[in-house]
Amino acid sequence: MTQISTSDTHFHESFNKLLKRGEMDMESVLPIVNEILREVKEEQETAILRHISQFDSWQPESLDQILISKKEMKTAYDSLAPSLRDTLHLAYDRIYAFHSKQKLKSWIDFAEDGTILGQKVTPMQRAGLYIPGGKATYPSSLLMNAIPAIVAGVKDIIVCSPAIHNQVNATLLAAAHICNIQHFYKIGGASAIAFMGYGTQQFQKVDVITGPGNIFVATAKKLLFGEVNIDMIAGPSEIGVIADCSADIESLALDLLSQAEHDELASSILITPHKELANAVAQKIDEILPTLQRKEIATTSIRERGMILVTTDLQEAIDLMNLIAPEHLEILTEQPFEILPHIQNAGAIFLGHYTPEALGDYLAGPNHTLPTGGNARFSSPLSVDHFLKKSSILAFSQKGAIGLSMQCGEFAEAEGLQAHKESILFRQKLSKKV
Amino acid sequence: MTQISTSDTHFHESFNKLLKRGEMDMESVLPIVNEILREVKEEQETAILRHISQFDSWQPESLDQILISKKEMKTAYDSLAPSLRDTLHLAYDRIYAFHSKQKLKSWIDFAEDGTILGQKVTPMQRAGLYIPGGKATYPSSLLMNAIPAIVAGVKDIIVCSPAIHNQVNATLLAAAHICNIQHFYKIGGASAIAFMGYGTQQFQKVDVITGPGNIFVATAKKLLFGEVNIDMIAGPSEIGVIADCSADIESLALDLLSQAEHDELASSILITPHKELANAVAQKIDEILPTLQRKEIATTSIRERGMILVTTDLQEAIDLMNLIAPEHLEILTEQPFEILPHIQNAGAIFLGHYTPEALGDYLAGPNHTLPTGGNARFSSPLSVDHFLKKSSILAFSQKGAIGLSMQCGEFAEAEGLQAHKESILFRQKLSKKV
Repeated sequence: MTQISTSDTHFHESFNKLLKRGEMDMESVLPIVNEILREVKEEQETAILRHISQFDSWQPESLDQILISKKEMKTAYDSLAPSLRDTLHLAYDRIYAFHSKQKLKSWIDFAEDGTILGQKVTPMQRAGLYIPGGKATYPSSLLMNAIPAIVAGVKDIIVCSPAIHNQVNATLLAAAHICNIQHFYKIGGASAIAFMGYGTQQFQKVDVITGPGNIFVATAKKLLFGEVNIDMIAGPSEIGVIADCSADIESLALDLLSQAEHDELASSILITPHKELANAVAQKIDEILPTLQRKEIATTSIRERGMILVTTDLQEAIDLMNLIAPEHLEILTEQPFEILPHIQNAGAIFLGHYTPEALGDYLAGPNHTLPTGGNARFSSPLSVDHFLKKSSILAFSQKGAIGLSMQCGEFAEAEGLQAHKESILFRQKLSKKV
Repeated sequence: MTQISTSDTHFHESFNKLLKRGEMDMESVLPIVNEILREVKEEQETAILRHISQFDSWQPESLDQILISKKEMKTAYDSLAPSLRDTLHLAYDRIYAFHSKQKLKSWIDFAEDGTILGQKVTPMQRAGLYIPGGKATYPSSLLMNAIPAIVAGVKDIIVCSPAIHNQVNATLLAAAHICNIQHFYKIGGASAIAFMGYGTQQFQKVDVITGPGNIFVATAKKLLFGEVNIDMIAGPSEIGVIADCSADIESLALDLLSQAEHDELASSILITPHKELANAVAQKIDEILPTLQRKEIATTSIRERGMILVTTDLQEAIDLMNLIAPEHLEILTEQPFEILPHIQNAGAIFLGHYTPEALGDYLAGPNHTLPTGGNARFSSPLSVDHFLKKSSILAFSQKGAIGLSMQCGEFAEAEGLQAHKESILFRQKLSKKV
């Protein structure tokens, strides 16, 4: 694991590399993704069926064959060990409870003259959730994407996930059963994003597409932004840890490794003012690495993307972490709540020694779909908000409208818009007419 | 103005054309916009200065020359008629008051076992506002974009607007003075979006770009989505009106025309079950059109994009309007609040006979930056939310973490992630260690 101190001469070079960790080479996949999108737009089902036989190693003959029935989901659910079923229900309930607290209400506000202004909050009608399949299948992602949509009140929730060799992970299907998903299609990659974003003759396009995915999925989502809404463009997972000497070495090493085992491209970053802690954690990581089932992935990730920064003090650690803007941030210090107000940029903030990031992946309650690659500067965790939209409400009383008409007319005039002005001033005449 | 009844044989054809009004031919401008973006990314200031001399008909020699001083803004403000200054202040105050009500609070929630979960709300640090210039300059757009950023608590607010022949509209500068804008650059089009989105050696990139613009600006914003956040991809303005026979003919005609005068591509759509009202409005529009200063624009808009749909009843009018998902929706009926609950899709909803849409453009309070082209299905008015981001907060108590550890470990195991499981289970050991 690379270790560097802020006083080292090469610090800025290494740090700038960290800041650029989120850069994705979308250019290189753009021609392929553009072609997939174009094919789905033009050929619809025909293209989708072809893409499945190209990429997922099985050959469906019609759209019916790629739709998973409610019965299949129920069967998968029944096949699970009862304890795992209970765990899924516990996760559902905790995630549901947390997201319920996010739900915005419509509001209105009254002026003395009788005018009403406000904001109407309405669920989107159709949401498309993309859940990756193949190598890594994460039933937790289905819960994390479906539950905010359910809390928002979305009527039609559509799930797409690739079924390599026409096999779908039973736990994923059980999660879909618990979420009462009505429409689960075995479609993967950019083709799935195009299917949900453009729609077909038989399938009405969705209003929003959410969920993780590889660079093909991310690129397709970016290209469809504007056509539909998109949660975010996410890259490989990452964790940043701010620690002082109160941190437990082994907990810290395990937390860093739990990111590293996700993906060779995952980043695990520790920032601490304590050089001894840094050394001890690096050593512990080397000890644990060979014992992991996913040791190849984790070792590559730690070697290529792992980083320990040793700072002069805790304040410098905070400042650097705000620049990094990590997806997950653990604060393993004596007084983590003293640091919280100073955190500007992070997807999710895990405070104290008993909040391992992995709790947040499954059943703490908050969403695990988070902005990566520094995007926490401007992007938020997936939430109920992603499945709602707002409309302004304006209802002027006669008195309210007349009272503003002269000045509003003057503003319209200053912008050279005569019909605007007249439409407002005419309300004075209207009030005399009535 | 095209008039068609839902019972006409060609109805679906015409209506589908309406549903496709938002389609923008981004393909055709993509090569140009890509080139502008690439130039700014690589050549930075040099490219920006060149673009200004290419597109804005003046030749600045350094970045200093394109930055407007606070003094210039103050001078412009002082030069306005006192009544217009008052109007700008009135607009500022009313927009500020409305947006203040939108501001989300951070929240936390406590479990019995001492665990704390919540959501931290943090303003973005740098916001870039694009305000079109040239043919049409709208000082109201500066207020509508800057005020939500101010309410959110954004520290650095940057404005870009083109200065054709190095001239900037005095009212626009006065609005910038009132909003206390510190950084106002005379840069326009895709070049301005690239400047704010990529940054340069001397100019740190922003976190979010908002504001209206032509197809070059819209395409540049779409391409930069992910690099920074983007409010929405907006197209030409539009109004939909649902009216019954309580509507005043002349008000209605003026309200439709106030959209039409914006832009040849603007859409004005009336839906009513009353054929006589439809005829009377069409006639009134023909009467007023020749009297408008912007009659060429308004006439083209009404002819090419204006539409009156006559329905069998009010319910059908509502259903069709929800499919259209207009940017602005006026409900000119006897009981507009009876219709409000059934409106699914609209940017802003104007209720009753004394709420002309133009009031909302200037100083009613709600934002005038709204989703167009049917995007109200999934997009919201510009708001304080566009300038905030959220971070989840998790702080587990020892008891809380231990209580969930077995089940969370089981979930991690089901996903094949061993280090996740061990990082959670290790907290049991840690609790005995302490």
